[in-house]
Amino acid sequence: MSENATFEQIGDILRRHESFVILSHVRPDGDAIGSQIALGFALEAAGKRVRLINEDGLPDNLTFLPGSHRIEVPPADPVDAEVAIALDTATKPRLGDATLHAASGADIWINIDHHISNPRYGDINLIDSTSPATGQILYDLITALDLPFPDETRDAIYVAVSTDTGSFQYPNTTAKTYEMGADLIRRGLDVGKINELTYDSHPFRRVELMRALLNTLQLSDNGIVAHWDLRDDTRRKLALFPEDSEGLIDIIRAIRGVQVAVFFEELPDGKIRVSMRSKDRAIDVCKIALEFGGGGHALAAGIRMAGPLEDAKPKVLAAIHRAVEASARS
Amino acid sequence: MSENATFEQIGDILRRHESFVILSHVRPDGDAIGSQIALGFALEAAGKRVRLINEDGLPDNLTFLPGSHRIEVPPADPVDAEVAIALDTATKPRLGDATLHAASGADIWINIDHHISNPRYGDINLIDSTSPATGQILYDLITALDLPFPDETRDAIYVAVSTDTGSFQYPNTTAKTYEMGADLIRRGLDVGKINELTYDSHPFRRVELMRALLNTLQLSDNGIVAHWDLRDDTRRKLALFPEDSEGLIDIIRAIRGVQVAVFFEELPDGKIRVSMRSKDRAIDVCKIALEFGGGGHALAAGIRMAGPLEDAKPKVLAAIHRAVEASARS
Repeated sequence: MSENATFEQIGDILRRHESFVILSHVRPDGDAIGSQIALGFALEAAGKRVRLINEDGLPDNLTFLPGSHRIEVPPADPVDAEVAIALDTATKPRLGDATLHAASGADIWINIDHHISNPRYGDINLIDSTSPATGQILYDLITALDLPFPDETRDAIYVAVSTDTGSFQYPNTTAKTYEMGADLIRRGLDVGKINELTYDSHPFRRVELMRALLNTLQLSDNGIVAHWDLRDDTRRKLALFPEDSEGLIDIIRAIRGVQVAVFFEELPDGKIRVSMRSKDRAIDVCKIALEFGGGGHALAAGIRMAGPLEDAKPKVLAAIHRAVEASARS
Repeated sequence: MSENATFEQIGDILRRHESFVILSHVRPDGDAIGSQIALGFALEAAGKRVRLINEDGLPDNLTFLPGSHRIEVPPADPVDAEVAIALDTATKPRLGDATLHAASGADIWINIDHHISNPRYGDINLIDSTSPATGQILYDLITALDLPFPDETRDAIYVAVSTDTGSFQYPNTTAKTYEMGADLIRRGLDVGKINELTYDSHPFRRVELMRALLNTLQLSDNGIVAHWDLRDDTRRKLALFPEDSEGLIDIIRAIRGVQVAVFFEELPDGKIRVSMRSKDRAIDVCKIALEFGGGGHALAAGIRMAGPLEDAKPKVLAAIHRAVEASARS
């Protein structure tokens, strides 16, 4: 089905089946995990059997979410579920191989997402790229269908939407997003507490990472490109978790005058991961990433390329400076 | 008048007079400046004469606010205004001497604020400590009185409330705060743009300051107290502005397990300024501040004490550790 399903069509499937496996993408973020919990607990409160599966399990920074203990890594054998629901996952392979295997017994696939590039790989699809987060689509769905709204669902939706909008700041945030926030508070959300747990409870090693990164920070002479890097030995010394660096690039993206922020990471296998953020659509970092076999969006893109760091860095920076100059001429 | 005035009583004063001087506190933050602009432009659009005066003028980080060019430092002579309106200013002296002199010709003082400690120094007072920001009180007032709502007012209210709630995160944020956000977007607010200008446009020196502070960061052995310091020569070397350090203490306050965060600053006169943040009401940093002649609130307090840093630091840290131990025993 290439058209979006209506809420009622999805409601029909949810009512007619008893067992569900709810999935989201590898390296899950707040919107992925929050969406799984939100829909899972609403369905369970409606009397359904539910499993919540993610290739990488529950990240350390989201263990505070009520109900998060229900997130499992994929079991070795397919689970017994009639319906698989993929949430916040732009392509089916992004679910991960073990997760796809675990969900392989499902008869029906529902695909709910807010990524515009989603190729509609479900039997039933609900793709709304005007929504800033999959959590907000689920809020609309759950309230429209008058499904139960347990506290776990309430808190998970808030965290899903808050983390995907940079705390209600990004351009995709809508009036409806704020109205949803108001409704969740009226439903009993403890807004101070949940934000403290989401944003003010970082492991010390994250602050050590911030210090290590800042000590490598370089700003180009024209002030337009800021970059920093992380050596693999620093990662090992600080015993970093993958989620520890999440969002840190925003520190240098936020420098006045900077148009492109770049994070170079030396991986254990010697490869280099490059994350780029642009503030200006005229400097399309996805195009730059494509030159090196990477990809992404105009304002956020990534590369995985051969090392060593000393070789990768000047190549990528030169390509960025060419793009900056081209944008200045146009 | 010790009771709160009604919106109608305030509306009456606004209608019956033609000239206003609108004030806020020294070292103004987003809520102070935002409130001045919000009310000033609403009154001006209603045909009134308005001056916006602040002891320290407009801070560099708020120059993006439409209408902010109207913020003046106090002129030498009292301005011609029938009504003075103090906004977001907990005590009258916090307006500053030059500002008080500039407003000394006013016949009527209106005092609008959200600080619970405000002693109601106006002829007309509107103190609402349940409001997370003075900007939200003004939103209620302006909409209740059906005053004009120009774009400058809309943007200024958003920034006032966003900065005073840590982007809609703090415990004092209410469902009404979120509903106001929705209404401001429906009135045409560009939410992505205004947040980028508010939060993603720091001068490079602020990131340099962050690096300098992180390089002095120390965490106590029990992980409960985090502190860092700023030498006066670093401040001079980086050519820092007072607002550059605003909010940085939140980086170490956000470390998991930390209950007290402390920022020691060596001032040009050799004195030491100490800022303390507690996450736990049982560790009352105001009490600790009082031991050294400082003051504040249970969760946020400050001291200005004799240097040098080497002497001040161990004294304050010892007092904090005594308070931590006392709270553990109780």
